[in-house]
Amino acid sequence: MLWSIMGTIAAICTTVGFIPQIIRGLKTKSLSDVSPMMMTLLFVGCSLWMVYGIHLKNLIIALANGFTLSFVTTIILLRILFKKSAQDLGTEKT
Amino acid sequence: MLWSIMGTIAAICTTVGFIPQIIRGLKTKSLSDVSPMMMTLLFVGCSLWMVYGIHLKNLIIALANGFTLSFVTTIILLRILFKKSAQDLGTEKT
Repeated sequence: MLWSIMGTIAAICTTVGFIPQIIRGLKTKSLSDVSPMMMTLLFVGCSLWMVYGIHLKNLIIALANGFTLSFVTTIILLRILFKKSAQDLGTEKT
Repeated sequence: MLWSIMGTIAAICTTVGFIPQIIRGLKTKSLSDVSPMMMTLLFVGCSLWMVYGIHLKNLIIALANGFTLSFVTTIILLRILFKKSAQDLGTEKT
C-alpha cells in the first residue's frame, strides 16, 4: 500500500511540476531562459509515454503523461508568444 | 517488440530532455526564467520514482529517474550559482 502511494505521489509531482513554470511565465512574460529543445524532447517523450500507457491499458501512465503533455505544450506556446511580443518591442534577449 | 521500443524511446526523451537546459544555462549563464518550484517538484518526483523503481526491481524506471534526478539537480545548482554571481554583479533580474 505504501509503495503504491509513493508511486502516485511521484506521478503527481512529475506532472504538476510544470504548472509553476507556466505561472512564472505568465507573471514575468519571459521564458527565454527555458530551453526549447528541452521542451521539444519532453513533448515527444510524453506523447510516446501516453500512447504506450494507452497500449498497456495503464491509466496512471496515460493520464499523467496526457496532463504533462498539455502543460509542456502550454509552455512552448507561451514561449513563442512572449518571444514574438519581445521582438515586436525590440527587447528580445539573444 | 515495437511497443517496448516506443517505451524505451519515451524514457530516453524524458531523461535526456533536461540536458539541453543545462547546455543553454552554461552558454547564457542565465536560468532565472526557469521556475525553481518546477525543479523542486521534479526533484521530489524523480527521487520517489527512483526509489519506487528500485522497489519494483524495474531497472528502466530506476535508471531513467536516477539520471533525470542528476540533471535536475545540476540545473538547480547552476541556477543558484548564476543567481549569486548576478547578485554580486548587481545585474539580477527580479
